[in-house]
Amino acid sequence: MADEALFQFLHNEVIQYVNTTESGETENGRCVSKLENMGFRVGQGLIERFTKDTARFKDELDVMKFICKDFWTCVFKKQIDNLRTNHQGIYVLQDNKFRLLTQLSAGKQYLENAPKYLAFPCGLVRGALSNLGVKSIVTAEVSVMPACKFQVMIQKM
Amino acid sequence: MADEALFQFLHNEVIQYVNTTESGETENGRCVSKLENMGFRVGQGLIERFTKDTARFKDELDVMKFICKDFWTCVFKKQIDNLRTNHQGIYVLQDNKFRLLTQLSAGKQYLENAPKYLAFPCGLVRGALSNLGVKSIVTAEVSVMPACKFQVMIQKM
Repeated sequence: MADEALFQFLHNEVIQYVNTTESGETENGRCVSKLENMGFRVGQGLIERFTKDTARFKDELDVMKFICKDFWTCVFKKQIDNLRTNHQGIYVLQDNKFRLLTQLSAGKQYLENAPKYLAFPCGLVRGALSNLGVKSIVTAEVSVMPACKFQVMIQKM
Repeated sequence: MADEALFQFLHNEVIQYVNTTESGETENGRCVSKLENMGFRVGQGLIERFTKDTARFKDELDVMKFICKDFWTCVFKKQIDNLRTNHQGIYVLQDNKFRLLTQLSAGKQYLENAPKYLAFPCGLVRGALSNLGVKSIVTAEVSVMPACKFQVMIQKM
């Protein structure tokens, strides 16, 4: 509980700080990309710890399942609720109650703030996948808070 | 373990980010004060959760003991090793293996970086105390890594 709150509170502070320092210029875009980059490096670090004693992954789908179950549980305290794929390199991870959005009001009024809260986790996933040898682009969308869909597009080398 | 790493990695990113954005001007001072402010607000939030079901504190010393035991254990995974006071509003909290310094090399070469890693925790303590009605100034010093002393000077109203 404590650590969870510690991370969430710090994450909120970071969003606010990045938001004020990056304002001006292209504003939101820069803020989101800074947060995404932080997430990327944190994801790289985390996945190294998590997979220390894990058997080698069979394939891409196996990696994605690990992200949806073990990684998500460690970081966000629950599993992904639904994983879909077109078997051509696109994966959609649906979380019906995403931890970093539960603290925002569920109404529509804060929907425009959602991207700031999703940039770090998007980077987290991209960083984790990257250190597992899977290059990707990760985006997120919210239609009804606090549910959230992460789309992972695998970049073939 | 996971959450712990998550917080530490994010904390590292924040230090690096704040350090680059606040460079120029008075550099280090501004960086440290930004981190301290973030810690302050996080500390305020945390202590509210931690003390939700706690009995009222008897006095200032009782508050300090709570910080050294419960608060420290929740946030830094161990208790403060030694608490001293002059009974005139100054408290020295010694942690012989401070969590946020254990990742730095124990030699002298990174000693100059220590203040950046201590700004957030100083703010954390100040924020926690502040929401318990105790106004204070909190500083930290390191002589040998990863040991660390926090000095709390109570500001009488």
